Amino acid sequence: MKMFHILLIVCSLFTLSVHAAVQDFCVADLKGPDTPSGYTCKPVAIVTVDDFVSTILRGAGNTSNIIKAAVTPAFSSQLPGLNGLGLSIARLDLAAGGVVPFHTHPSGSELLLVTQGFITAGFVSSANTVYVKTLKKGDIMVFPQGLLHFQVNAGGITAVAFASFSSPTPGLQILDFALFANDLPSKLVEATTFLDDATVKKLKAVLGGTG
Amino acid sequence: MKMFHILLIVCSLFTLSVHAAVQDFCVADLKGPDTPSGYTCKPVAIVTVDDFVSTILRGAGNTSNIIKAAVTPAFSSQLPGLNGLGLSIARLDLAAGGVVPFHTHPSGSELLLVTQGFITAGFVSSANTVYVKTLKKGDIMVFPQGLLHFQVNAGGITAVAFASFSSPTPGLQILDFALFANDLPSKLVEATTFLDDATVKKLKAVLGGTG
Amino acid sequence: MKMFHILLIVCSLFTLSVHAAVQDFCVADLKGPDTPSGYTCKPVAIVTVDDFVSTILRGAGNTSNIIKAAVTPAFSSQLPGLNGLGLSIARLDLAAGGVVPFHTHPSGSELLLVTQGFITAGFVSSANTVYVKTLKKGDIMVFPQGLLHFQVNAGGITAVAFASFSSPTPGLQILDFALFANDLPSKLVEATTFLDDATVKKLKAVLGGTG
Amino acid sequence: MKMFHILLIVCSLFTLSVHAAVQDFCVADLKGPDTPSGYTCKPVAIVTVDDFVSTILRGAGNTSNIIKAAVTPAFSSQLPGLNGLGLSIARLDLAAGGVVPFHTHPSGSELLLVTQGFITAGFVSSANTVYVKTLKKGDIMVFPQGLLHFQVNAGGITAVAFASFSSPTPGLQILDFALFANDLPSKLVEATTFLDDATVKKLKAVLGGTG
Amino acid sequence: MKMFHILLIVCSLFTLSVHAAVQDFCVADLKGPDTPSGYTCKPVAIVTVDDFVSTILRGAGNTSNIIKAAVTPAFSSQLPGLNGLGLSIARLDLAAGGVVPFHTHPSGSELLLVTQGFITAGFVSSANTVYVKTLKKGDIMVFPQGLLHFQVNAGGITAVAFASFSSPTPGLQILDFALFANDLPSKLVEATTFLDDATVKKLKAVLGGTG
Amino acid sequence: MKMFHILLIVCSLFTLSVHAAVQDFCVADLKGPDTPSGYTCKPVAIVTVDDFVSTILRGAGNTSNIIKAAVTPAFSSQLPGLNGLGLSIARLDLAAGGVVPFHTHPSGSELLLVTQGFITAGFVSSANTVYVKTLKKGDIMVFPQGLLHFQVNAGGITAVAFASFSSPTPGLQILDFALFANDLPSKLVEATTFLDDATVKKLKAVLGGTG
Repeated sequence: MKMFHILLIVCSLFTLSVHAAVQDFCVADLKGPDTPSGYTCKPVAIVTVDDFVSTILRGAGNTSNIIKAAVTPAFSSQLPGLNGLGLSIARLDLAAGGVVPFHTHPSGSELLLVTQGFITAGFVSSANTVYVKTLKKGDIMVFPQGLLHFQVNAGGITAVAFASFSSPTPGLQILDFALFANDLPSKLVEATTFLDDATVKKLKAVLGGTG
Repeated sequence: MKMFHILLIVCSLFTLSVHAAVQDFCVADLKGPDTPSGYTCKPVAIVTVDDFVSTILRGAGNTSNIIKAAVTPAFSSQLPGLNGLGLSIARLDLAAGGVVPFHTHPSGSELLLVTQGFITAGFVSSANTVYVKTLKKGDIMVFPQGLLHFQVNAGGITAVAFASFSSPTPGLQILDFALFANDLPSKLVEATTFLDDATVKKLKAVLGGTG
Repeated sequence: MKMFHILLIVCSLFTLSVHAAVQDFCVADLKGPDTPSGYTCKPVAIVTVDDFVSTILRGAGNTSNIIKAAVTPAFSSQLPGLNGLGLSIARLDLAAGGVVPFHTHPSGSELLLVTQGFITAGFVSSANTVYVKTLKKGDIMVFPQGLLHFQVNAGGITAVAFASFSSPTPGLQILDFALFANDLPSKLVEATTFLDDATVKKLKAVLGGTG
Repeated sequence: MKMFHILLIVCSLFTLSVHAAVQDFCVADLKGPDTPSGYTCKPVAIVTVDDFVSTILRGAGNTSNIIKAAVTPAFSSQLPGLNGLGLSIARLDLAAGGVVPFHTHPSGSELLLVTQGFITAGFVSSANTVYVKTLKKGDIMVFPQGLLHFQVNAGGITAVAFASFSSPTPGLQILDFALFANDLPSKLVEATTFLDDATVKKLKAVLGGTG
Repeated sequence: MKMFHILLIVCSLFTLSVHAAVQDFCVADLKGPDTPSGYTCKPVAIVTVDDFVSTILRGAGNTSNIIKAAVTPAFSSQLPGLNGLGLSIARLDLAAGGVVPFHTHPSGSELLLVTQGFITAGFVSSANTVYVKTLKKGDIMVFPQGLLHFQVNAGGITAVAFASFSSPTPGLQILDFALFANDLPSKLVEATTFLDDATVKKLKAVLGGTG
Repeated sequence: MKMFHILLIVCSLFTLSVHAAVQDFCVADLKGPDTPSGYTCKPVAIVTVDDFVSTILRGAGNTSNIIKAAVTPAFSSQLPGLNGLGLSIARLDLAAGGVVPFHTHPSGSELLLVTQGFITAGFVSSANTVYVKTLKKGDIMVFPQGLLHFQVNAGGITAVAFASFSSPTPGLQILDFALFANDLPSKLVEATTFLDDATVKKLKAVLGGTG
């Protein structure tokens, strides 16, 4: 009898719950249009736990390259459950001698957690002050939004770190690529960086830039 | 003559006004996709005053249930003009002995206004401090975003209240339903709530949960 | 023994809870400085439930004035618990023949709930379209942020309504007061409103304006 | 050899860059649906520099009208690259004797820059205080969001100014148009503005209003 | 000569840089007042790299308690450089058999990264749907803002995880503590949870609650 | 008599207006503390129109320097009325041959308006695509938040432009200054930029860097 009555709660309140559930989350429909606030939402009926889970960061990225480094992002494109939630993460593998060159995240702040090895990391403020520190396993460091920063392996062994971001799409602008890996005319690059022609042409050549 | 000149204002400024009108409001197109910022907008040309008005809260909800309570929401799904405006409302009817059990609104703060009867309401902070008060007609009480709170009828007569929210989709997570009205295995419920097996199984049974 | 162990949870987790509690809410310290995001916060230790509750809207406002209307706000200045929570409320009393003249809320959208009598309410969009409706007890109507709107008593009896806002400080700019209740020179008022000199001077006189 | 190695960077990092590029910007797809956060985004592949550039403000607007003024907006409808970026601009031309009558921008603050001539500009706060100043070439003035303000030519020559806004769609509600250029019944206009019947009917006539 | 000229850049641009530097970051002045947007800022002149770095998460928390778990937060109170940046982190240690009981973060979404062992984690939506998964080293899982969730050790060995949050002060409300570790009268707890008197009193006893 | 009655409106409504006026604006108290949302507010009683007006951009900046350019900001530090309003502006003077080198604004998007001469401006996206255009008087161009961009004089005459920003404190990080005008060790600069030792040391020398 009591059970029967309580079951009535289900009936009377359930409609509300179902309607109210909208916007608990907005799992990205990666085939739908993007908006300034993120992707459109997948219908809740076809959302599963796998929209909120990813194994993409399990393994080390391939560091067999000149910078001996790999960055593996889990942004909303890779983990649709992050859409609209103001949060994302990336894995950073740095072989001995590895470097993540100067870069910015135009749309988010970063919080770096070192889980293996030693990393020297730093950022530069608008006042051109340098904030640099060598981190070891378990250490964390903040990089405020939009500021130039870098990470270099500071030990003889492979280092691993995870970077959290305050946006599901923080962006990544790598300085050397922005300057030298496109068709921006060398003259403009030189005028706007104070670098000489030889330096600009050399870096354009190795990074695939033209002009 | 003067009238003729003034009419020119209409011509010269009207184009501007029409273009600028975009985003005065964004009435929800409930058949369109949802986004992290709300539904896509109905074309302004087919918007009418009825998109901004609702009679859904006129009548008392049905309180013939075990909690002797009814919650009737007017969120953006029910009142499309609220879409994108950071605001919504719900009506609360509490028969004598009625209770709105512990619940949270994951995406919004609440402001309760009692319009009839007496209600004892309370919330618990992250520091586990309880803020509880008995309200009468005309009294208002704030429940900060995401915190557990409840309302119970504190008089011998039916109470009515209206809850405003700081989001057009504040959500509603009723504690007992979240714990006992689904297929979360009893073992996990017990481990994560400190409740014993008998209690969990009894509540699962009455609330329709399995596992 | 089990009890002893469980008590250890309190010790191990309590520090966390206490620290984490910051920013559950930020009750306004009305004597402290204001900021773009609201007042500074009262220390949690001296916060009580009365910071979240108000009886200010219990009674009818005084409608013995020319507009036969009274607006009683419960913004963060009146209800400090609202500070930072994106929400506030006001009570509107309209005697028979009462009017809330054209006005805007520069910083918030409004959701009006009629709890007694009949009110004709309307707003005008940027495209100069009018959205007007007569509301009765239990009806709600949305007024999007910053748009001109009004409320007039539409019955022979006193009407009461409660307006919720999407900001703890939505502001209130009453059109006639903005134009005529200050020292803006009549010439400027006339040039910028198309009203003639006699009309401007008459309204300035009755509303206390000069110049 | 070194060049070969560096080229590997391109391979290893390029995928990341491409994915991360999402949300650097969201150029408006003006044919797509609108949302509370702006238009859906044009695919990055078809975005060109012309989505970020406009020549629409090069020439003077037509001031051959009764207010001797023209406002030319460059909002996201006119300059799609502004979509989602919290910024827009408009050009203001004021012939001698020109006036931009009292108006508000419901969704944005304004920053006015005078580039030619003399302009007297002012706004009124919620407390009905007037803030008015005569500006000359190079002067700037702030108009906080949602407040009534105006601009009038203060010299014998044509004045030009550019108004920046804190929203890609700030809106524009011109007071006289909102009151007199639509079908809001004269009785309601009179009751909510304190203006007399003759004044309301005269202005309705010249501004194209009915009722 | 060229060098001399270039040095002039420093002079002409430096003042700008210094002024513009404000708001690159706002390191919390923990002795200053709190606001709805975070703590007031420490003067930039006394900010050092140590404001952006913390070693607090290096070591394992003490799991010698009944839940065999420890949560160590690095919120803005612990890491002042996070203030205002929309991001924080916490370390989670779970001994074999360890449990983080059902809880919510009222002000932030969570992204969990497992760095050792196995963890079964889950959350419940407003529609009472359960999303649960067993994670291993390198796996990540999202918990949308404000929803009830839990983590339990799913292996025979100690598990370690790091939870990132979309707020520098996400809050933490542990369900059992909110219900049983304070002075909320047992009658109210029972009425609002459907738990029987014996259960409530037992849990109040072990968790330190009264009333 | 009617006038007497209307005057009562002033009494009955004025208290409301005064209280509601809070947060129409929050003029920066530059001597008060800064917060993540901006400076604390100057008391409204001592705010004047001069808090909202500035003549700082009237005159040309000094371009007698190696880049033949000057940037004069009007951020909230220079124009306190901008505080909290999401908007600011700067004047750009470019003598013939003048250059604003590659830079970013970490906290805001930019909208450039050319008012004299010819300017070639460009930005680079996260995908390393270049968007570049030569602008003339009256043209506008958008630079999305946080992305590297530059401006160079593209004619034989002095150019003038005004840059609006979507933040009262957009920040300014000039690439060459961030890399070479501080004490970041040359080895770290070289490792993180791919520049050779000679180039780094030369630029450090001319820009005042050490290490």
